[in-house]
Formats: sequence, C-alpha cells, structure tokens
Amino acid sequence: MHGGIRFLLVGAAAAAMAGTAMANSDLAKLEADSNNWAAQSGDFALTRHSKLNQINKSNVHKLQVAWTFSTGVLRGHEGGPLVIGDTLYVHSAFPNKVWALNLEDQTIKWKYEPKQDPSVIPVMCCDTVNRGLAYAEGKIFLQQADTTLVALDAKTGKVIWSVKNGDPKVGATNTLINPSTTTTYADGKTVPVGADSSLKTWQGDQWKIGGGTTWGWYGYDPQLNQMFYGSGNPSTWNPTQRPGDNKWSMSIWSRDVDTGSVKWVYQMTPHDEWDFDGINEMILADIPVHGKPTKTVVHFDRNGFGYTLDRTNGMLLVAEKYDPSVNWATGVDMKTGRPVGVPKYSTEHNGQDVTTKDVCPAALGTKDQQPASFDPQTGHFYVPTNHVCMTYEPFKVEYTAGQPYVGATLTMFPGPTTPVNGMQGSMGSLIEWDAGTGKIVKSHPEKFSVWSGVLTTDGGIACYGTLEGYLKCVDANDVNKELYKFKTPSGIIGNVNTWTYKGKQYIGVLSGIGGWAGIGMAAGLEKDTDGLGAVGGYKELSKYTELGGQLTVFTLSQ
Amino acid sequence: MHGGIRFLLVGAAAAAMAGTAMANSDLAKLEADSNNWAAQSGDFALTRHSKLNQINKSNVHKLQVAWTFSTGVLRGHEGGPLVIGDTLYVHSAFPNKVWALNLEDQTIKWKYEPKQDPSVIPVMCCDTVNRGLAYAEGKIFLQQADTTLVALDAKTGKVIWSVKNGDPKVGATNTLINPSTTTTYADGKTVPVGADSSLKTWQGDQWKIGGGTTWGWYGYDPQLNQMFYGSGNPSTWNPTQRPGDNKWSMSIWSRDVDTGSVKWVYQMTPHDEWDFDGINEMILADIPVHGKPTKTVVHFDRNGFGYTLDRTNGMLLVAEKYDPSVNWATGVDMKTGRPVGVPKYSTEHNGQDVTTKDVCPAALGTKDQQPASFDPQTGHFYVPTNHVCMTYEPFKVEYTAGQPYVGATLTMFPGPTTPVNGMQGSMGSLIEWDAGTGKIVKSHPEKFSVWSGVLTTDGGIACYGTLEGYLKCVDANDVNKELYKFKTPSGIIGNVNTWTYKGKQYIGVLSGIGGWAGIGMAAGLEKDTDGLGAVGGYKELSKYTELGGQLTVFTLSQ
Repeated sequence: MHGGIRFLLVGAAAAAMAGTAMANSDLAKLEADSNNWAAQSGDFALTRHSKLNQINKSNVHKLQVAWTFSTGVLRGHEGGPLVIGDTLYVHSAFPNKVWALNLEDQTIKWKYEPKQDPSVIPVMCCDTVNRGLAYAEGKIFLQQADTTLVALDAKTGKVIWSVKNGDPKVGATNTLINPSTTTTYADGKTVPVGADSSLKTWQGDQWKIGGGTTWGWYGYDPQLNQMFYGSGNPSTWNPTQRPGDNKWSMSIWSRDVDTGSVKWVYQMTPHDEWDFDGINEMILADIPVHGKPTKTVVHFDRNGFGYTLDRTNGMLLVAEKYDPSVNWATGVDMKTGRPVGVPKYSTEHNGQDVTTKDVCPAALGTKDQQPASFDPQTGHFYVPTNHVCMTYEPFKVEYTAGQPYVGATLTMFPGPTTPVNGMQGSMGSLIEWDAGTGKIVKSHPEKFSVWSGVLTTDGGIACYGTLEGYLKCVDANDVNKELYKFKTPSGIIGNVNTWTYKGKQYIGVLSGIGGWAGIGMAAGLEKDTDGLGAVGGYKELSKYTELGGQLTVFTLSQ
Repeated sequence: MHGGIRFLLVGAAAAAMAGTAMANSDLAKLEADSNNWAAQSGDFALTRHSKLNQINKSNVHKLQVAWTFSTGVLRGHEGGPLVIGDTLYVHSAFPNKVWALNLEDQTIKWKYEPKQDPSVIPVMCCDTVNRGLAYAEGKIFLQQADTTLVALDAKTGKVIWSVKNGDPKVGATNTLINPSTTTTYADGKTVPVGADSSLKTWQGDQWKIGGGTTWGWYGYDPQLNQMFYGSGNPSTWNPTQRPGDNKWSMSIWSRDVDTGSVKWVYQMTPHDEWDFDGINEMILADIPVHGKPTKTVVHFDRNGFGYTLDRTNGMLLVAEKYDPSVNWATGVDMKTGRPVGVPKYSTEHNGQDVTTKDVCPAALGTKDQQPASFDPQTGHFYVPTNHVCMTYEPFKVEYTAGQPYVGATLTMFPGPTTPVNGMQGSMGSLIEWDAGTGKIVKSHPEKFSVWSGVLTTDGGIACYGTLEGYLKCVDANDVNKELYKFKTPSGIIGNVNTWTYKGKQYIGVLSGIGGWAGIGMAAGLEKDTDGLGAVGGYKELSKYTELGGQLTVFTLSQ
C-alpha cells in the first residue's frame, strides 16, 4: 500500500489510462524535441533524461532563479510541470488546480479549478498529492483525486470530456494520469503461467479485496507496442490473514497496448509481509547486461532490489540490493526468481500480534514513487532513495468497503550507517546504479529521504530536490560532486524537469512538503511518533521547512 | 476605516505600544548599524532607508534569488522580516506564526505558533494581514489578530509575557505592533485647542462609538522625545449620521513618550465623508522646506494630500496633492489648515441614499498603509500609490457592538489618465515627491496599485513590490528607470527590507497577495464587483498571480 493511513485501495480503483503510454505520433514528436518537456517523465521510456546541454557541469553553479509561481495550495506537491512550446502547464495538490502559464511573461493563460468533494481527503493515502498532468492531441489530461479523469483543451482550458473511474466512498481515489499468451519467469526461463494463475494463489475470495492496485509510472515501447507497469501490495498488511503468493500483486507487467493482453508478468515479492508495493516506475533502456546489449526494463522496487529484465520476454537478468542495509532477504534466487527470505525479519514467520524489529527497508521502501533517471551518456541510473527501517506488528482486521483495511502497526526510523550511506542518521541518498551488473557505482548521502524525481541531461548533471527544500545538481560522473544547491520555499517532493524557451534552457521544480515522507508536516502530525510510520524519523523536517506550493524556475545567470 | 468589510474598529481597540517608538538604547544602536534591519521601517524616523550600497544602481541588474522560505500560510502578507545579527525574524498572516531563521543555513532556530480563535477572521477588516514584528531588549513583540500582545525571548521563542488589548467579540482586532498642553494649527499658526476640543465636535455620545482608531506606523524623535502617529476615520461611513468635525479623528498626533501628553494635533479631514483614514506612516526628515532647513514630519494621507509639518510645533508648511486626479478638494487652505471641498464630490452634500460618482481617490486612498521611503541622498520621498476612484452611497445604519457599522456602499475603479499616471488603466504608481515644495518629481506608473513598502538605499535605488508579484528596483534619481524586476511566487503587499550577513548585502520581501487591494483573491471574492469596493478593478489580478506566503531573499550574483 501507498501510505500511512489505515485503509485499502481496492483493486479496480486506480487503474486508468497512461498519458505517456499511447502510441501518439503528435506526442512522440513533441517528446523527441528536447525543447519541450511533454510528458511527466520526459519520454515514453521514462528516462527523465534531456538532450539539452546549455546548462552543464561547468556552468551549473551559475544557475539562478528566473521566476517563481505560487499554486495557492499547501501540502505535498508531487509531479512537475509540462512544457509544450510557449506554454507551461502546472498542477497543484488537492483540489488539483491546473494553470497554463505563458512562458513569455508568466501570465496565466487559463486556469481550471475542479470542484471536488473534500470527503475524498481522508480516503487519500499519504497526503493529498497529484503526480501531474499528461498531454496528447491538443488536450491536457488531469486525474482528479475523486477519480474523475478530465480532458481539457490545451489552448483554452475548457473541459472536452470527463469520466469517473471509481468511487471514493468505497475507498477509491487517484493521484496520477495513466490509459493472453502470458508467461512468467521461473526455473531459469520464462514459462507459461497456465490457467487460474492468480486465483489459486489466494484463499477463497480474498483476491476480490486483495489490493494489487496500480498507481505508478508506466513505460511504453512503441516498437514492441507494449506497456510496462507494476502492481501494488496485497491487502491486508497482516500476511497471516491471506495465505499464498497473492498473485499477481507485487509484479511487473508487460501488456499489449492495443489488445490489453498480458505478454509476461513477474512477481517480485510473493506473499508480501512488509507493504513493499511494486508500482515504482519502469524505465526502458537499451544497455549491456553482463556485457550483452539488451532491451531492458529496469525497476527499483520498494523491496530494496533493483531489477533488470529483458523487456521483450520477461527474462530476469539482474536482481541486486541497491541499498546494502536491505535485510528481509539475502538476495533473489536467480533460478526461481524468488527472494530468499530471512526468518528473523519475516512478519508472517514471527506471527500476528508480534513485533518484528529492525526490518530494512521500511514500508515506504528503499524507493517509493519518486522516479529515477537513466543517463544514456554514462549508461547509469540515478536513483532517489530512502534509507529507513521499521518495526512491524500485524494484527487481525475485518474488511469493510471504504474503511481502512491495513492490519499492521509500524514505526519507522533512520537506517544503520552503511558504506553507501556513510553519514550517521542519513535517511536517504542519491544512488548511481549500474543496472547491467546490479552494482552501486557511487552514492550521495542526504539527511532525509530523496523524495524527488531525478533529471539527467546531456550537460552531464543529475538534479534532484531534497525534503529540506534544496534543489541540488551533482556531477553525473561523480554524484558525490555537488555542483549547485538552492533553498526553495518548501520541501521538495516534486520531480525536476527541463526545457527551453527562446533558445534558453530552464530547469523547474515544484516545492511543497508532503507525500508519505512529509505527511507528518502536511497533515499537522509532527508530534506523532507511532502509528503507521508516517512520521517517525522525519520529525526533524520542521527545523528546515514549512508547508508550501510553489514552482521555482531556474536558468543560467546572464 | 481600514477596509472593505462592514464593521467598526472601536476607538480603544487598536492602541498598542510602538515597537519602534520607545527610547531604547539597545534598539537605537541596532538601528544605527545598517547591517541589521532592526525595526519594521528600519529606524525610528520611519525612513525605510539603508546606508548600504553594495547593491547599487550600477549592479542591481545582477540581483538574484539567494534563498526562499514558505510561511505555510496563504492570504495577504504585509510587513517584512527583521534582521538582527545572524538571525532573521519573520511572521505570517493569521494565525500569526513567527520564525527565527539562522542566516547561516536558513534552518529554523525556533517557531512560535499562537492558538487564536478563528472567529476573529470575519471581524478583521481587509484580509488577515499582520504588519510584522518589533524587537527591543532581547524580545520579539508580536501583536496577534486577537489583540494579544506577546513578548517572545528572541533567543528561544519562549513567551516572556503576553497581554490582551481588546475583545474581538465587540469588533476589536489588531494587525500591528506599536507603544496636555496641546496645540493645533489654525489661522496660520499653532493655537491651543482649548477645553473639550474633541467633545464639542460630535453630536451627543457619538464620539464613544466614533472610530478614530490607530493602526499605522509610528515615528519617534529621540531628541524631542515625541512620537508621531495618525488617527483613523470617524464612524459610521455615513457622514449625515454624525454632524461636526468629529475631532480628533483623521489627525496627526504628536505625543510625549514618557508622559503620554499631547503636544500638538492637526486634523487633515474634518468630518470625513469618504473613509480617508488618517493613519498612514509619519516620516521624520530634516529637509529644506521652501528653502529653509526644517525638522519635519511628512505624511502621505489617504485623502490624496502630502503634508509637511514642522514636527517641533505642528505648523502646517506644505499640503499638496500627490496625485493630480484627487478631486474631492481643490486644495488645503493654508490659513485655516482645512481642505477646500468640492460640493459635487461631497457625500454629505449629496446626502443619504444618493450615489456620489467619480470621487478620487477611492476609500483606500491615494495611499493606504504601504509605507513610503525617504532618501536623504536625493532629499526625496518614494511613495507607493493607488490611482483608484469610486462611487459612494451613504445609508442609515444602527450601531451594535461587534457588528459591522459601515453605512455606505461603494464601488472602485481605475482612475482617469493623468500626466503622472500616463498609462491607460493604471491603478497606481511609484511617486518621487519633493516634500519641501509639495511637488511630484517623477512617477513610475504601474498596472495595479503599489501596495508594498518602498526601500531606498545609499546605492541610489528604490525597490518595491507589485501586486502581480514583481520585485522592482528603480533609479532613485529617475524612478522611471527600471533597473531590475523579478517575479516572486505571489503578489507583493509586503515591505522591502535590506541587511548584510557576513559582509554581503541582501534584500528581502514577503509575497502573498491580499490586503485591501487583494482581498478579492485572498477571500475568494474574485467574482464580486459591488459591495465595499474591496474587489472592483483588481479582478484582473487573477491573470497574474495566486495566493501565497513566501519570503524571497535576493543578493548579487557571484
């Protein structure tokens, strides 16, 4: 599950259409032109990489703020702006306002302000965030928290159509924009999953209320005509209540965009015992794997393993820890594809009403939704990570539609000092990762989790935000080399983007502390230390920042 | 009255202590050191001028944003930060939070968050603003909206003492920090006011509910040991209901700081008919008046006249329009000291339930509380002005304690094009003013009112904010020469300050659209056009900016 509030996102709730995942020649062209930032992750492959290099490692220290824009909304601001031509489209947290800003003079071309029933707020897990807009065919798509998907005329902001995808009253909400000869990995190869592959891994009808929702970032390969996405945790969080592998929760999916049929599926965390939701972004990269050029899908899972698969067929190629403190499994058995668990950290093994201590990572994972970037110049991935552990105590819970359905109590705290996070009390870092070998190249430790999407560019830099509110740019060839930092008005959980206007390169990022890491501040819970771990460890954030909701746009000084 | 909501600030409500108006050697020393910004207006004389010149007219175009801070509060942010040594103290609009920020790394040293009954909000005229903190003797003083005056330990933020100055339930609220051988000007000289000078200018007991409150910026002359401040409008806004001069509303006061006794008083607008509240700042400047060196108090009144008096004795020396569109009076009779009214624009003359059209200025005045700056280098004043006119219709109203007690309906709209505001539809400008002759030197027209306190420095610049959200710096020798502008996150109604830290000069300003001009946006009234004129004319602001609450700090690029 995504979050710290006790409730269930039921399975059907959050499936929607992928703004970036449609074969759309208009959008493909816009994405191919680096002057735009036409999709949340920059391109169909979710690389979050730009070919722009006007801002580069030798001049990035001269960055300065070009202009700023307040959304007039507080709480967590995830996602980032889109830029198409002379217009920047930006959204806010609930109530999900949308503005089209004229890049010439920053005036507001149009504004869309949905009327949403605020009763959806307590249903929303992990703050009132929204992960941003999508563009296609002259339309801006907004997925409102109340599950209404709206298509706005990109020129005027007028509603062209809208459709309701779920009902918050039964626990459904939404935070993002998105649209069988099935095999899976087993026994060292891909094999057919066979009939009832999901049903027989659940007890009775539990699959009907079993979670496995999807709310992450979808990759799309136009050549294969396949989309790639992850499914979330099975519910409840109490594993003793739901025997079996609980397929296909916690899985990577490959699906044909035209027919919807599944090509392959791979379950990372069978029978989840820690809420290691599998929805993080799927980055498509053509890289050497153990020396061999491969069409891969690379995925940094909440469970602390970085996975590299052959995206054409679902073959598992690499599965390694991207934080050495990960302890719930010693590794992944490359024959079976299954993790090798450690009984001491198994909440199922220890049993209901027993506290399992010092599990790493915590439920929010070694990484949550904050998306990594792939830099084709270095061939490496730049991964924003959490370095947080937890205690976890499952308890028995009954299911009622629309009510919290969690079944575990947990507390979170900074992880142990490791060679990678070599800073005492560090709760996260920016990891430079080699997905072809499954090795950490370098690490840039931070005081708090890095809860911001990374940008890399042909200028040789990697930029990301911190929960204290800094925008930082580091050397992509040595992430330890900090080249620039700037204190924005509020903590950053947004994703860094770049574009040009009139030949000048800009970098933009949303500030606004919140999200799972910042829910304590966003919802005024600073003083809580127990519960679902929404707060523990992040309490010190209040020494650094306050609530906000601002876009900050940077460029090189004259 | 200050504002557009129908209610009365009763006389005793808003009197408080002047943070800048106490003879305090500690504070005097801090103010004398330009590295600090130790009082809201910079010094006891309210000049808003700094001797710093590292940022100057030849390099101000290289200003860039050094860091930013969100207050986590939306709506109007008036006032500005204080800086003393290595600490910056900043406040928010209601609920009036206070932070001490470490200038070394912008971390939060301490935070004070009062618990205030939100029922004070509808009692507050003209948005939920607060005009900032005061410092003295190791304490930070906060005047809360609920009239509680709090002294905080400047080092720890702990409450040292607090005292309640009024009761919001009978209409009292507060937005600022502040602490009889009486004469007045008449017959070309200063004369004793005589016994019952106030009482005999009111009908019956009307003086008891008659307004005349004080909520502006107090000047202080340590040599004379006198403080200078203004009193507000008589109530109701319906002049036909309260015959007489209604003394001493609408007056400039000089008072002994130790004994409280009044030395002199001068009424600018006897028997107010337009809400030309007299509380604007009193700037103490030693300048030549008609060629003769004089200890003056200079005051830019809501009524559109700029007054220069001898502050030692209250002699009226200059009273001239600082906006040529002012039409309710042809001038001030320099013998009697009284304005020469124009019957056509007299709402008393036209009578109850009759609409008086095209009165200039509107109720919010040619200038409201946004404070001007005096630059001793040019000898001129830099005055942020409104260029707004109105219709005004008085109606009969009964007084009930704690209830709105206005008695007029008005609408506001941009003033006519004049040689000074030579831009069609301009609603304001920065005026450069010679107070020794009563003449406009130059004018920098703006689209909207300039609702931000001006800063001048020995660097030869004048800086101010605009309602669209720009910080602008112009040449103090030619205000038409715009040297720098930057779009901050939200519209600016805060006051521009400057200081140094570790030898580097900084300029800071609060963004956060609101106040009287921005109440339409702040309170979500964009669509209203009638009522008390709170909105009319400013509707277009929503094309430029959104609500916010941010401090933006500037410095020169490396």
